[in-house]
Amino acid sequence: MRSDAASNRRRILETARALFVSRGLDVPMATVARHAGVGVATLYRRFPTREALVTEVFSDEFTACAAIVDDALADDDAWRAFRRTIETVCAAQTRDREFNDALLSSLPGTAGFERERLRVEEGFAEVVRRAKAAGRLREDFDVSDLSLVFMANRGVIGDAATAPAASRRLVAHLLRSFEAGRAAPARPLPPPAPLGLGRLPRIVEG
Amino acid sequence: MRSDAASNRRRILETARALFVSRGLDVPMATVARHAGVGVATLYRRFPTREALVTEVFSDEFTACAAIVDDALADDDAWRAFRRTIETVCAAQTRDREFNDALLSSLPGTAGFERERLRVEEGFAEVVRRAKAAGRLREDFDVSDLSLVFMANRGVIGDAATAPAASRRLVAHLLRSFEAGRAAPARPLPPPAPLGLGRLPRIVEG
Repeated sequence: MRSDAASNRRRILETARALFVSRGLDVPMATVARHAGVGVATLYRRFPTREALVTEVFSDEFTACAAIVDDALADDDAWRAFRRTIETVCAAQTRDREFNDALLSSLPGTAGFERERLRVEEGFAEVVRRAKAAGRLREDFDVSDLSLVFMANRGVIGDAATAPAASRRLVAHLLRSFEAGRAAPARPLPPPAPLGLGRLPRIVEG
Repeated sequence: MRSDAASNRRRILETARALFVSRGLDVPMATVARHAGVGVATLYRRFPTREALVTEVFSDEFTACAAIVDDALADDDAWRAFRRTIETVCAAQTRDREFNDALLSSLPGTAGFERERLRVEEGFAEVVRRAKAAGRLREDFDVSDLSLVFMANRGVIGDAATAPAASRRLVAHLLRSFEAGRAAPARPLPPPAPLGLGRLPRIVEG
């Protein structure tokens, strides 16, 4: 690739990422082209579909996510695999909140994620099945509870100063709840997050 | 009060509420006056301070919130009081998300909430102390974990269609974690929330 072509490509990817994060994945291709300072034809020549562009923009994240699933499925301790899946995804959410928000708000229905989603979905379901089969995960845990955990985690990471502590604490509380058959959990909780009651939603309607 | 004065007052309160919810509690008094179609002098004559206006605008919420604390402190079953405090606040958040967002984002440092906050803060701390003294709440529960719960709950109520089920399920998971000494909780979980993996934050930055 000639160096100006490489530079064009890099600029398109950086611009597209910034736009996807700030405005969602359905930003028009023409807008991406305009912000990147290239013609629409040039953009489509490099990325024939939005799917191709999205996949390329977020390739590191796709790789990291696939790695989480692969690691979990390779672990021969089913509870550890389950626990680490939750801990790793929540820690990643905490590090990368902006992107996470963009994804959560615009993923459903966006072409280009279906294959990845299916793979993660099947991987997570298998992790849950194994942890139950090992007797370590409560039978009433539902695979949709994973989504619930990640959504809840998103709620506690709005303030960068307290996000890591808040996320770790929340995840530890939830894992205690999910674990089968332990009255007194073996693992102590991490320290409380430094949350002031100033963030307390005291106001109630109704 | 003459009827035009009463109508002015109602319009000021409705306008102020809409602005507080959409733009935060620090909207200038002059902006409130302009949107309500009254002079600044008129606004200040009725509400000499922002604190007075905020308190009046959200008086129903303040009342409801004080009632939650009073109910909890009047309950002679310490665990039920603790459980209901969490359930009631989270249900209220779910019903009134917009307001809740405004409050969470703009409360700290806003004059006019300090006295209310202090009262709720002390009431919640007492509810926690009693539940621990009764041996029903884990010793490692920290009062800041209440804030954590309400923040987490906020994360799962973004979609009105799934919010009530998601909130109930999350709260039930967390209460299981907080309850002391039960390997097999007496209360079954509510059904899983209808969460698709389309909302799953699969994307991770390394």
